Amino acid sequence: MPHISMPEGIPGIRALVMVRPETGEHLYALVQVLLRGESPLSEAERELIAAYVSNLNECNFCTESHSEAAKFLFNDRVVVDRVLTNYMDSPISDKLKALIKIAGKVQQNGKLVTPEDVADARKFGANDRDIHDTVLIAATFSLFNRYVDGLASLTPTDPNEYIAMGKRMGEKGYVFPKKS
Amino acid sequence: MPHISMPEGIPGIRALVMVRPETGEHLYALVQVLLRGESPLSEAERELIAAYVSNLNECNFCTESHSEAAKFLFNDRVVVDRVLTNYMDSPISDKLKALIKIAGKVQQNGKLVTPEDVADARKFGANDRDIHDTVLIAATFSLFNRYVDGLASLTPTDPNEYIAMGKRMGEKGYVFPKKS
Repeated sequence: MPHISMPEGIPGIRALVMVRPETGEHLYALVQVLLRGESPLSEAERELIAAYVSNLNECNFCTESHSEAAKFLFNDRVVVDRVLTNYMDSPISDKLKALIKIAGKVQQNGKLVTPEDVADARKFGANDRDIHDTVLIAATFSLFNRYVDGLASLTPTDPNEYIAMGKRMGEKGYVFPKKS
Repeated sequence: MPHISMPEGIPGIRALVMVRPETGEHLYALVQVLLRGESPLSEAERELIAAYVSNLNECNFCTESHSEAAKFLFNDRVVVDRVLTNYMDSPISDKLKALIKIAGKVQQNGKLVTPEDVADARKFGANDRDIHDTVLIAATFSLFNRYVDGLASLTPTDPNEYIAMGKRMGEKGYVFPKKS
């Protein structure tokens, strides 16, 4: 049960931003630019980083929804599961592995990212924007995960709900929910 | 030294949002509403929660700047230091103590917040919006702390710089820096 009153039957972040749209609109605008705006990282790669960090934070709602968005955008379900299980042993590029390593450190604490981590990513072709976007995605989902779980918003248990959610996120991006 | 190229001599978050203003403008707009918009929590109390969480995350830039903003807004330097050292033994209200306990749990993981934590806060007069704003401030600074430290942006060492910063934050709030 949620810790505060929120619209019933509406899952995760959507209910929260309806509770306080004045902050919610900026959260949606941020994540739309960050995950769908111009970037050297593909939308699929950015959703994968979001899912990876959410999984480390054990936020079920964000992990499931962003995993499904990544699966939809990659058009590949297996690669996403393998990255979340053991990214070093998954069939992704060395560049993306180096960036996911950085994201995992940011999930713990930003100070853990070393010049060597950044140099490794650059060696495999990452540029400043790849590194910037990786850090900001990991930081942003450290917010969303805590907002969703800290207020105990509704987390659906039916996998089909997340598949539909991921498809919608992949096709339409992050559209601020209108009050009904 | 910062991990990516950013404007020289500009500290903390300001340099980062100049690197990527498209996301930065939403980060500034979020924090302006969250820390300066309408809330049952005073601006001073909200800055204190931001400083408390930043201190737990060991983000020197955010801890110093938001501590100074809280000191300016409370017009009391001692209370802020005492909260950061041992809030249970500090001269703040029982309501604020209960909210700071929740913020400290969100800093670790949102799932740690229990119905009992929320009931305790309500017992001392907290309402839904107090609890919402506390959780979102703790979550938001979990983002800012990681963004600032994950890219190793400039952290000034002169305490006077933070005093000036805190006064500006207290008086003017969060104004998106214009590109020069």
